[in-house]
Amino acid sequence: MAGCNIAVIGATGAVGTVFLNILEDRAFPTGDIRLCASERSWGKKLIAMGKELSVEEATPMLLSEVDLVFVCAGSDISLEIGPLAVEQGATVVDKSSAFRMDPNVPLVVPEVNGDDLEQHNGIVSVPNCSTAPLVMVLKPLNAVNPVERVIVDTYQSVSGTGAAAMDELRVQSGQVLESSRITPKEYPHQIAFNVLPHIESFHDNGYTNEEMKMVWETRKILHEPNLQISATCVRVPVMVGHSEAVHIDFEESISPGEVRQILSDTPGVTVVDDPATNKYPMPIDAEGQDDVFVGRIRQDVSNPKGIAMWLATDNLRKGAALNGIQIAEELLRRELLLRTARRN
Amino acid sequence: MAGCNIAVIGATGAVGTVFLNILEDRAFPTGDIRLCASERSWGKKLIAMGKELSVEEATPMLLSEVDLVFVCAGSDISLEIGPLAVEQGATVVDKSSAFRMDPNVPLVVPEVNGDDLEQHNGIVSVPNCSTAPLVMVLKPLNAVNPVERVIVDTYQSVSGTGAAAMDELRVQSGQVLESSRITPKEYPHQIAFNVLPHIESFHDNGYTNEEMKMVWETRKILHEPNLQISATCVRVPVMVGHSEAVHIDFEESISPGEVRQILSDTPGVTVVDDPATNKYPMPIDAEGQDDVFVGRIRQDVSNPKGIAMWLATDNLRKGAALNGIQIAEELLRRELLLRTARRN
Repeated sequence: MAGCNIAVIGATGAVGTVFLNILEDRAFPTGDIRLCASERSWGKKLIAMGKELSVEEATPMLLSEVDLVFVCAGSDISLEIGPLAVEQGATVVDKSSAFRMDPNVPLVVPEVNGDDLEQHNGIVSVPNCSTAPLVMVLKPLNAVNPVERVIVDTYQSVSGTGAAAMDELRVQSGQVLESSRITPKEYPHQIAFNVLPHIESFHDNGYTNEEMKMVWETRKILHEPNLQISATCVRVPVMVGHSEAVHIDFEESISPGEVRQILSDTPGVTVVDDPATNKYPMPIDAEGQDDVFVGRIRQDVSNPKGIAMWLATDNLRKGAALNGIQIAEELLRRELLLRTARRN
Repeated sequence: MAGCNIAVIGATGAVGTVFLNILEDRAFPTGDIRLCASERSWGKKLIAMGKELSVEEATPMLLSEVDLVFVCAGSDISLEIGPLAVEQGATVVDKSSAFRMDPNVPLVVPEVNGDDLEQHNGIVSVPNCSTAPLVMVLKPLNAVNPVERVIVDTYQSVSGTGAAAMDELRVQSGQVLESSRITPKEYPHQIAFNVLPHIESFHDNGYTNEEMKMVWETRKILHEPNLQISATCVRVPVMVGHSEAVHIDFEESISPGEVRQILSDTPGVTVVDDPATNKYPMPIDAEGQDDVFVGRIRQDVSNPKGIAMWLATDNLRKGAALNGIQIAEELLRRELLLRTARRN
């Protein structure tokens, strides 16, 4: 098979950088790679797949020369580039929330609902970085014992906001340690040595958009439109790695041992659950790893049919770039790329 | 009324220091103040109520000369000093978990169950720093609409561990910023730029002792032995201030507006809930304040009879020292000090 020509929109950002690293790690069958970003980065040199490449403008011409476009640059860019790329015959894997709830756009975690790719119309969405690890855990459990309700509270790292937020946490932490004056920019309040119960804008129902994404996206990915789920999403002063405290009520009782066994048998999930030796998932251990790490699995003391657990995952990888590449791999395997289809 | 002679055991620690500050702020009617700590601090000078005092050994003689003993130095010290102080005729307010679940020891948040002080036998326990703010919120709501189930996930600051842990977070944060090697001492893993789903030891049921304290203590304080409650307790890299994501299922439906009204009318609780202007409780704002701050109050989207909310409180104050002083004030007001009783 000839390599797949790829354009990365947002190549200089936190997710774009990780995307290029993972492409190389997984030996993704790439042909040409084109790197795009906003005007201030045009001409900047980046290394991708061992080659030095210049950052370019995402022109219709460029989009017509690639098979796959990975967009990781915010919803506004996706809304502009997505349809344009499809028009030029490329297939789009979009990290943003722009198309996720569009009924014509599959929202995919390949291990969970890879079959949904068959219905794509040129654009495939990557779920939110907090939703992806959650559905990785819910899917295999729901298959065995229907999930009735999920309550999840998150501990999300600043890399979910982007590279500038990582800089802000770094600089602000130093300033707080030196008792210097700080000026929040990326967040409405100080993030160093603080936690913010606020990720994205607020809806009229009092939930944030991030929290409602977890509700809507989980239902769509699991094909469970009536799943009862509530979330509180919280930003914590961690660089990379999102964690979640998850409380699941099942239709029937299930033991922690059964849950541990099911999750141990699930590709992409690693159980790290040995409290006696202080082993449980943590963001610093998840960073740079592909799997969703799950531990603290226990019978919920407030519900005999409930299980409480804790998970951590690299939000830039399974929560974004890795999942995007896995979608691309699955599109290739299933021969679902628009341009390849046309060549046939 | 003559001043009350007080001994503070653990006067050099994080809670002890705050205790002395609050005594002064609240103009607590003190007579002599005696400061005690471990041997390495004997002779050390501290300022308390504007006077320079030497740290002493907590001898039976010293305990016989005070009316009230505030113990904030770990369970082992409480088990030793508590009964000894009572034997010497002093009344003990104990911050540790040593006696909390003892049926002969009241576990008190004065605004919630001050009447339980009437049954004390010399020792009164201060609840865990995560439990105190939670019961402050649950009590007034439960009085109006019975609480059926609570799920709470915490975001606890390192000051809950003590002064050494605060130093560790400070030093470790600097080391991580400089990419220096770090060596965890107070925690089993790095705490800077990380979160640990692990506070205190693990029980056989997979919950930590901190999590089970929240279950047991909440039931005892609310006099609701069958309350269904589950917690995941997590240490976050914050200096002072514990936060909690709380999900409450009620017997009957209740609106966020009603909840906001009830909590606004509750002494010791301040509602900070205006998402439109980015106003919600945060640990950096709770630090140094007496109240429990509650916000993000919303109808739970997973349960029409549920309410989700978020709270933050100064764990050294309402979670420990302040609550201890409020207990002492209440003991004085109700004339329940052992030695005062004898004098009568």
